[in-house]
Amino acid sequence: MTRCQRRRTSVSGAFMLPRLLCLLCFAVISLAEENTEMVNVVTERKAEESHRQDSANLLIFIILLTLTILTIWLFKHRRFRFLHETGLAMIYGLFVGIILRFGVHLPQDLNDITLTCAMNSSPTTILVNVSGRFYEYSLKGEVRDSKGHDVPNAEMLRKVTFDPEVFFNILLPPIIFHAGYSLKRRHFFRNLGSILSYAFVGTVTSCFVTGLVMYGCVVFLKVIGQLGGDFFFTDCLFFGAIVSATDPVTVLAIFNELKVDVDLYALLFGEMHILVSIVAYQPEGDNRHTFDGSALLKSLGVFLGVFSGSFAMGAATGVMTALVTKFTKLRDFPLLETALFFLMSWSTFLLAEACGFTGVVAVLFCGITQAHYTYNNLSAESKSRSKQLFELLDFLAENFIFSYMGLTLFSFQHHVFNPLFVIGAFLAIFLGRAANIYPLSFLLNLGRKNKIASNFQHVMMFSGLRGAMTFALSIRDTATYARQMMFSTTLLIVFFTVWVCGGGTTPMLSLMHIRVGVDTDQDNSVTPDGMTQKSTKHESAWPFRLWYTFDHNYLKPFLTHSGPPLTSTLPACCGPIARCLTSSQAYENAGQLHDEDTELILNDDSSLMYSDMTVSTDAHGMPTPSTSQAGLYSLARTSDDPLDRELVFGGTRLVLPTDDPSDPLTSFPPPPPSPPLSDPLRHRV
Amino acid sequence: MTRCQRRRTSVSGAFMLPRLLCLLCFAVISLAEENTEMVNVVTERKAEESHRQDSANLLIFIILLTLTILTIWLFKHRRFRFLHETGLAMIYGLFVGIILRFGVHLPQDLNDITLTCAMNSSPTTILVNVSGRFYEYSLKGEVRDSKGHDVPNAEMLRKVTFDPEVFFNILLPPIIFHAGYSLKRRHFFRNLGSILSYAFVGTVTSCFVTGLVMYGCVVFLKVIGQLGGDFFFTDCLFFGAIVSATDPVTVLAIFNELKVDVDLYALLFGEMHILVSIVAYQPEGDNRHTFDGSALLKSLGVFLGVFSGSFAMGAATGVMTALVTKFTKLRDFPLLETALFFLMSWSTFLLAEACGFTGVVAVLFCGITQAHYTYNNLSAESKSRSKQLFELLDFLAENFIFSYMGLTLFSFQHHVFNPLFVIGAFLAIFLGRAANIYPLSFLLNLGRKNKIASNFQHVMMFSGLRGAMTFALSIRDTATYARQMMFSTTLLIVFFTVWVCGGGTTPMLSLMHIRVGVDTDQDNSVTPDGMTQKSTKHESAWPFRLWYTFDHNYLKPFLTHSGPPLTSTLPACCGPIARCLTSSQAYENAGQLHDEDTELILNDDSSLMYSDMTVSTDAHGMPTPSTSQAGLYSLARTSDDPLDRELVFGGTRLVLPTDDPSDPLTSFPPPPPSPPLSDPLRHRV
Repeated sequence: MTRCQRRRTSVSGAFMLPRLLCLLCFAVISLAEENTEMVNVVTERKAEESHRQDSANLLIFIILLTLTILTIWLFKHRRFRFLHETGLAMIYGLFVGIILRFGVHLPQDLNDITLTCAMNSSPTTILVNVSGRFYEYSLKGEVRDSKGHDVPNAEMLRKVTFDPEVFFNILLPPIIFHAGYSLKRRHFFRNLGSILSYAFVGTVTSCFVTGLVMYGCVVFLKVIGQLGGDFFFTDCLFFGAIVSATDPVTVLAIFNELKVDVDLYALLFGEMHILVSIVAYQPEGDNRHTFDGSALLKSLGVFLGVFSGSFAMGAATGVMTALVTKFTKLRDFPLLETALFFLMSWSTFLLAEACGFTGVVAVLFCGITQAHYTYNNLSAESKSRSKQLFELLDFLAENFIFSYMGLTLFSFQHHVFNPLFVIGAFLAIFLGRAANIYPLSFLLNLGRKNKIASNFQHVMMFSGLRGAMTFALSIRDTATYARQMMFSTTLLIVFFTVWVCGGGTTPMLSLMHIRVGVDTDQDNSVTPDGMTQKSTKHESAWPFRLWYTFDHNYLKPFLTHSGPPLTSTLPACCGPIARCLTSSQAYENAGQLHDEDTELILNDDSSLMYSDMTVSTDAHGMPTPSTSQAGLYSLARTSDDPLDRELVFGGTRLVLPTDDPSDPLTSFPPPPPSPPLSDPLRHRV
Repeated sequence: MTRCQRRRTSVSGAFMLPRLLCLLCFAVISLAEENTEMVNVVTERKAEESHRQDSANLLIFIILLTLTILTIWLFKHRRFRFLHETGLAMIYGLFVGIILRFGVHLPQDLNDITLTCAMNSSPTTILVNVSGRFYEYSLKGEVRDSKGHDVPNAEMLRKVTFDPEVFFNILLPPIIFHAGYSLKRRHFFRNLGSILSYAFVGTVTSCFVTGLVMYGCVVFLKVIGQLGGDFFFTDCLFFGAIVSATDPVTVLAIFNELKVDVDLYALLFGEMHILVSIVAYQPEGDNRHTFDGSALLKSLGVFLGVFSGSFAMGAATGVMTALVTKFTKLRDFPLLETALFFLMSWSTFLLAEACGFTGVVAVLFCGITQAHYTYNNLSAESKSRSKQLFELLDFLAENFIFSYMGLTLFSFQHHVFNPLFVIGAFLAIFLGRAANIYPLSFLLNLGRKNKIASNFQHVMMFSGLRGAMTFALSIRDTATYARQMMFSTTLLIVFFTVWVCGGGTTPMLSLMHIRVGVDTDQDNSVTPDGMTQKSTKHESAWPFRLWYTFDHNYLKPFLTHSGPPLTSTLPACCGPIARCLTSSQAYENAGQLHDEDTELILNDDSSLMYSDMTVSTDAHGMPTPSTSQAGLYSLARTSDDPLDRELVFGGTRLVLPTDDPSDPLTSFPPPPPSPPLSDPLRHRV
C-alpha cells in the first residue's frame, strides 16, 4: 500500500505557482499543527526546504531574464542585429536547461504513499481519513511510471516546469493587449479587407493544408512502423492550427525595429492578430477523433459566436473605460487613472473567461478600443504611465516565455523527437504558408487597386515566425503521445523560425528591395522612391471610410474629449442630449483638430515600442543596405510631418463645423456640414 | 468509502491562484483524456464551470477595486477627508462580503470521495491507484466537518477565500519595497537612534505588555468559562507581536497627504519599518507552548542572525543593481533599465527566501539602497518609470488587501468573536502602545538635545494604526481556536484603528498643535513658528555624520555617477583603481553638487506619493485649522528652497575637492580636504 517515492507533479509550477503551492503547503502544515510535535517539525522542515527550492527555481528565471536584458543591451549597444532578443532569451534558456539536466545532481527525496482504491474515474478532490481526521487532497495529474525515471534529476526538472495554462492565461494577455494597444490603426483599417482575407481564409487554408500534409506524413510513419502511438486526423488538424498561428510579437518587434514599409507591416500584423484570435479559440472546440461536415459547420458557428462575443466584450470594456475617464475628472489623479485603466483592461479578460468567451480575443480588442478612445481622455502623465506599464509587462512576459521555451527543450520530461515527423512538419508548414499567401494574394490583387507586389508576398511567406502563441498552444496539452510529439516538433519549429527567419529578416528585406526605415505614419505619397501608386489605394476601402465617418462624428465625440462637438454632428432634435454628452473641451478643440491625440500614440509608439530612441536615430549607421533610404527617411520625417498630417486630416477638416470655438455653449448647433464625400480631399482618409 | 460531498479548500485561493488552480484542473483533465469520452466531457464541463466561477470571483475583486478608485477620486475631488481610501476599500469589501454571505444562494455541488487509510500522519503527496492508473494528489489541508455547513453558501465563500500566504509573499513585498524606495532618508537617518530604540525596545515592550494583559484576560475568560478552546501563553505573546506591528502604509499615506511635521513623520515611519521587520520574522520562530529563558535567548540570536542576513542581502542586491546600472550604458534604453531594476528588486525577495532569510526585510532594505544609490544612475525616464511602477503596484496591493479585509469579515468561515476577549484586546493594545511610547520617550529625552515633545508623544500613541501587515500576519495561520479568535479580534482592531484613528488623525493633529502642511524636506530653521531648537538636533546623531562622510566620499562615488570623484577621496596609492571606478560623469559633476539627484527623489515623492498635486497645492482650502500655517508653508516652500538646499549642502561642499572640473583626468588627485568636522557648517548635515 505504501510505496516510497516522493513526487511532484509536472504541472506544479506557475508564474508564481511554485511559490504559491509551497506556501500552500506551509499553510497546510500549520493547519495540521495539532499532530504530534515531532511529525510537525519534520514536515515543517520539509515544507521550508521545498519553499526554498521553489524560490531558487523562480530565481533562476529572474537571473535568466536579467542576463537576457544585459545581453540585449550589449547587442543594441554594439549594433549586432543578426539575432533578435527573443532568440537570445531562448539561448540562455537552453543553457540553463542543459545545466539543470546534466550539470546538477540532487539526491531524490523518497517518501510518498500510494493508495489503492476501486474507482472508475479520478475525482478532482478526495478526502483521506487519517486515523479519524479528514484531510483534503486535490488531483494534480496522472503519473506515468516508465518515463519519469529515465532522466536524472527528474524531481528537479519537474520543479522548474510550469503549469502550461499559465502561458495562455497570464503571460499572453499582457502581450496581446499591448499589441492591440500599440496597433497602427490607420494602416490596419486601410488594409482591413486584405487582412481579414489573409486571416480567415488564409488561416483555414494553411491549417488544412498543413494538417493534410501531416496526415500523409503520419500514415507514412505508421506504414514504416516509426510511430509509437495513436495519431488521429484531428490531431493533424490541431497541429495545423497551432503552427498556422504566426507570432504577432516576434514579427512585430523585428519589423518595428527595422521600420519596415507600412503596408507590409499592416498586412502581416493584422493577419497575425486575427490568426491569434482564431487559434485561441481552437483548443476549446470539440476534438473528437472522427471528422464530419455537420460537426465542422456547428463548430464554425460556435467559433463565430465566441469570436464576436469576445470582440463585443473587449470593445464594451474599452468603451466603458472611455466613458468613465471622460465623465469623471479622474485625470487630475494620474495614479488613480492608471490603476483604473489597468484594472478595467484586466477585467476584460476575466469577464470574457467568466462568460465562456476567450479572454485573449477580448483583450486584443479591448486594447484597440482603449488606444482609440480612452487614450484621448487620459492625462498626459497617465498616457505615458499606461504605455510604459503595458510595455514593461509585455517585455517581461515575452522574454519569460522565450527563455522558458529554451529551458523546456531540456527540462521537459516527455519529449518525442521523431526525425521524419519533424521533416514532414517543416515541409507542411512551408506548404501551408505558401498555400495561404500566394493564391490569396493573387485573388486579392484582382480586386485591389494597389497590388500586393510579389516581393511583399515573398517576405510575408518568409516571416511567418512562430512564437509565444504557438508555444502556449502546444504546451497546453501534452498528455498523449501525439501531443507530445507535436509539442517537441513545435518547439523545433519555433526555434528555427525565430533564429533563421527572425535573424534573416534584414537580409531578406534588402534582397527583396523592401524599404527599411520607413516611418509607419508617414504618408506614402511623400516618399521619394516611386511607390506613389499606394497613395490612392485606400479609395478601395469603402467600409473603412464609412466607419471612419461614423466614428469621427459620433463615437469619438461621445467617448472622448476630442472630435467635433456632438451638438454639431447630431440632428438638432437631439440637442439637449448632445450638449450633455459633449465635454466642454470638445468645444474648445473644435477648431483645433484635436485628433492629434490619436495620431500621437502612433508616432510615439514607433519609437517607444522598444524604447531605443538611439537606435531609431542611429538608422544611418545601421549595417543594412538601406542606409541611404534611411537617411532619406530621416529627412522626410522631419520635413514632411506637417504636410503628412495636413493631408491626413484633410477629410477631417471638412466634417468640422465652422462655429466659433470661443463660445462653447451656443444653444443651437449649426446645421450639419455638407456630406464629406462631396469633397475630393475626403478620399485621402 | 465514498461519501458524497464536493469540497474546495479554504486555502485554495491566491492573487491569481483561483484561476491558476482551476487551470491546473483543466490541464489535469486533459492529461486524463484517455479515459472514456463520456467521463471526459462531464469533467471538462465541470472544470470549465469551475474556471468560469473563479474568473467571476476574481472579477468581483477587480470591480471592488475599481469602485474604490472611483470613490477615492470622488472624495479627493470633493475634498472629503474624514475617511482614508483604505477605509473606503474596507467598506466596499464589507458590502460585498454581506452580499455574498446573505444575498446569493447557489446550489451546492455534492460529489466527493473519502478514502480511509491507516497512516499516522498526513503526507504532502499521495498516489492513488485508480484501476491501474496512478494519479497524484496533493494535500490541501485538514477539513473540519462541523463548521463548514452552518453557513449558507459555504462553497461560494470558500471560493473567494485566498491563500493566506499570498498576502505575506505577494502583496506585502511591493508595499514594503515602495515604502523603502520612497523613504525620506535624511530624516530617517537623523533620528536613527530614537527610531531604533522605539523599534527594538519599544516593540518588545509593547509585545510583552500586550501579551501579558491578554494572558490575564484569557485566564479570566477560562475562569468564567467563556473560552471554547486552548489559549496558551505563547499564543498571547504571538498576539502581542501581531498587534504591535503598526502599519507603515496607512500612517504613511495619511501623514504624507497632510504633510505633517518632519520629525514626527520620521519617528513614526522609522519605528514602523523596523517593527515590520521584527514581526515579519516572528512566525518563523519556534512557537512552543512552553516558555523558558534559554529558548528566548536562542531565538533572539536566530532573529538577529536572520535580520542581519536579510539586511545584508537586500543591501547587496541594491548595490549590485547600482553597479550594473553604473557600469553599463543601460540608461540609453529605459525599458531595459526599468525591467532590470524591477527584476533585481524582485530577486532580492526570492534570494532571501531561498537562503532562509525573510524576504520582506530584504525587500525593505533593498528599496532603501536602490533609492539611495541606483536611483542616481537611472535615466530620467527610468526614474519616473520605476517610481510610477512601484507606486502603482503599491497602490493596487494595498487596496486589494484592505478590500479583502472587509470581505473576509463575512466570508471567513471560522470567526470566533468573543466580546470579552475583544474588549481585553483593545485594552491591551492601548496599554502596550502606552508602555512603548511614554517611558521610552522619557528615556530618549534624557539623551536628546531636541526633546520629543509631549504632543508628539500623544500623536504617536494615537496613530498606531494596524493595517496590511497585521492582517497578513494574523491570517497566516487560522487553524486553532486561539488563532481564529486572534484573527477575528485583529480584524476588528484593524477596522477600528483605520476608521477611528485614521479618520481622527487630522483633528488629533490640530488638537495637539502639530504643524500640518510641512514640506518634508524643508529645513526646520526656516519655518516661522518658533521651532528653531530643532535646527541643532542633528548634532547628537554622530553615527549618522560618520556614516554620511563615508557614504558620500566612498560609497556614492563608487556606486553612482554622483558625489566627488574617487580619485580625490581615496589615498593617492589607490589612484589607478579609483580612476577605473569613477565614471566620467562624476568628474563633470564634481563642481556641481550632483547630490540634487538624491534630493530630487525626496522632493518628488512628497507630491508624487499619491499623485494628488492638486491636493497639495490646495492646502489653503483644506478644512483643517492649520490653514494659515499651510499658507505660510507655501510661501516658505517657494522662497526658501534654495536656501534650504544650500544649508543642507553646506557640509557637502566642504568635502568636495576644489580641483578644476574641466580637467577630469588629472593624473594625480589633489590632497584630501581638511577633515569636515572642523567646519561649523558641517554640523548641518
